[in-house]
Amino acid sequence: MKITGTTRLYAIVGDPVEQVRSPEVFTDRFVAAGIDAVFLPVHIPAARFDAVFPSLLSIGNLDGLLVTVPFKARALPYAQHVGSMARAVDAINALRRDASGAWLGDMFDGLGFVRAAERKGYGVRDRRVALFGAGGAGSAIAHALAEAGVASIGIIEPHAAKAATLVDRLRRLYPMQRFDVVDRVPPGSSLVVNASPVGMRATDGLPGDLGPLDPAAVIGDVVTAKAPTPIIRLAVEKGHGHVTGGDLHAGQVDALLDFFLGKAPPPSAGVSR
Amino acid sequence: MKITGTTRLYAIVGDPVEQVRSPEVFTDRFVAAGIDAVFLPVHIPAARFDAVFPSLLSIGNLDGLLVTVPFKARALPYAQHVGSMARAVDAINALRRDASGAWLGDMFDGLGFVRAAERKGYGVRDRRVALFGAGGAGSAIAHALAEAGVASIGIIEPHAAKAATLVDRLRRLYPMQRFDVVDRVPPGSSLVVNASPVGMRATDGLPGDLGPLDPAAVIGDVVTAKAPTPIIRLAVEKGHGHVTGGDLHAGQVDALLDFFLGKAPPPSAGVSR
Repeated sequence: MKITGTTRLYAIVGDPVEQVRSPEVFTDRFVAAGIDAVFLPVHIPAARFDAVFPSLLSIGNLDGLLVTVPFKARALPYAQHVGSMARAVDAINALRRDASGAWLGDMFDGLGFVRAAERKGYGVRDRRVALFGAGGAGSAIAHALAEAGVASIGIIEPHAAKAATLVDRLRRLYPMQRFDVVDRVPPGSSLVVNASPVGMRATDGLPGDLGPLDPAAVIGDVVTAKAPTPIIRLAVEKGHGHVTGGDLHAGQVDALLDFFLGKAPPPSAGVSR
Repeated sequence: MKITGTTRLYAIVGDPVEQVRSPEVFTDRFVAAGIDAVFLPVHIPAARFDAVFPSLLSIGNLDGLLVTVPFKARALPYAQHVGSMARAVDAINALRRDASGAWLGDMFDGLGFVRAAERKGYGVRDRRVALFGAGGAGSAIAHALAEAGVASIGIIEPHAAKAATLVDRLRRLYPMQRFDVVDRVPPGSSLVVNASPVGMRATDGLPGDLGPLDPAAVIGDVVTAKAPTPIIRLAVEKGHGHVTGGDLHAGQVDALLDFFLGKAPPPSAGVSR
């Protein structure tokens, strides 16, 4: 890799950014593909976001951005066009310029989980899903699973209003599938996904009562941690198929690279705002 | 080099930036010194400068900037502190954060020429200088030469008011040295510097009448070009010592690196604005 005056820029913005993996992962991919571009960490202090973020979009040789915590919702209004997945979850995690120079934003967090499950051989179509968490990650995964054709999703979320809002939205967007607020994993679930933060701390246990799980059920987790999280440890012990937070991130890379390079449509049909 | 979440950022801003050499030069130097930092080209469209530039200064992991055409004067007001050299020429070409997080700006263009001349064995002290051009580059070089102790500078500049303003300023700042507006290279000049843009185009000739040059006179040029410029060709043909635009840029690198890394005082004592 050689950075010169003609090198194109991509970046991930967040506060903080020290923990992000994208610069390494995407710069390596650019090098491997012979693309004269680098991927940078850009730390925007949260209080300065609304001044700095639109300015970044004015940089002439910046071609794409990833958006991480805490900016996924705040970034959305700065995209001139957003995909339907981003509209559904009111947040974006990626932007690129389109042919006219306008910024196109979309949300890949949920698609990353679906791709990761598929890559491990667990198609999601027609599955009965139990989902812990109706926050940003849970909402993105719920929409992506619905889009990918699951039969039903039962949502377990301590914040009742949050759960109800997500279920209402899913019912409106996907009227042929079933969505419910539930208080534990429904019997017969064939995919159990933790999209809550439970498991991030070493002292955390399971995100909730998993009940008597079907041995064929697949278990997923959004939490990235060095050691396996409690729900992934349980999956390994009991012999369930599983998709980790690390798998999810890897599952996003190909989709994001295609998006950045304009090789593929976004996860949802582009919709003008 | 590996770009990760902890990598620190430096950049050169300009419009355009495709031609800049700094990203390659400084990134190599960072790598050689084991510093986890990269140097990027950042293209700010001129019409968006006043929105984008101050936003860049808010990026938490950005530690230094170079400023090139056409922003050297426009960047100055955004530095919280500027050196006296920057104040003298009303422009900056470099900024770094100081220990308190405030941005310190200064102007190295003139110092780069002086360092380059010294590296080639041509000390400038007590020389009688003829200088073509009283624009940004000419003004920076005139101040740096005065600071370095030349005996006199005769300034050749078609724009009379510009020449008069520069001479007035030099006389105020350096009352013990001699500064004049002249219409050709004064006889007995021992250093002739082209700081005008003449020589940038392949069809250009000399920047003006050089008269009968002292064989010991040194010739300098700010113009960077792949082929030697007309005034450098003349120097080579007649056996004069010479300092090219490329030498000038190389002469700045060490000084700028010391400035960025806080290892040396700026070219002029820091003065608060």
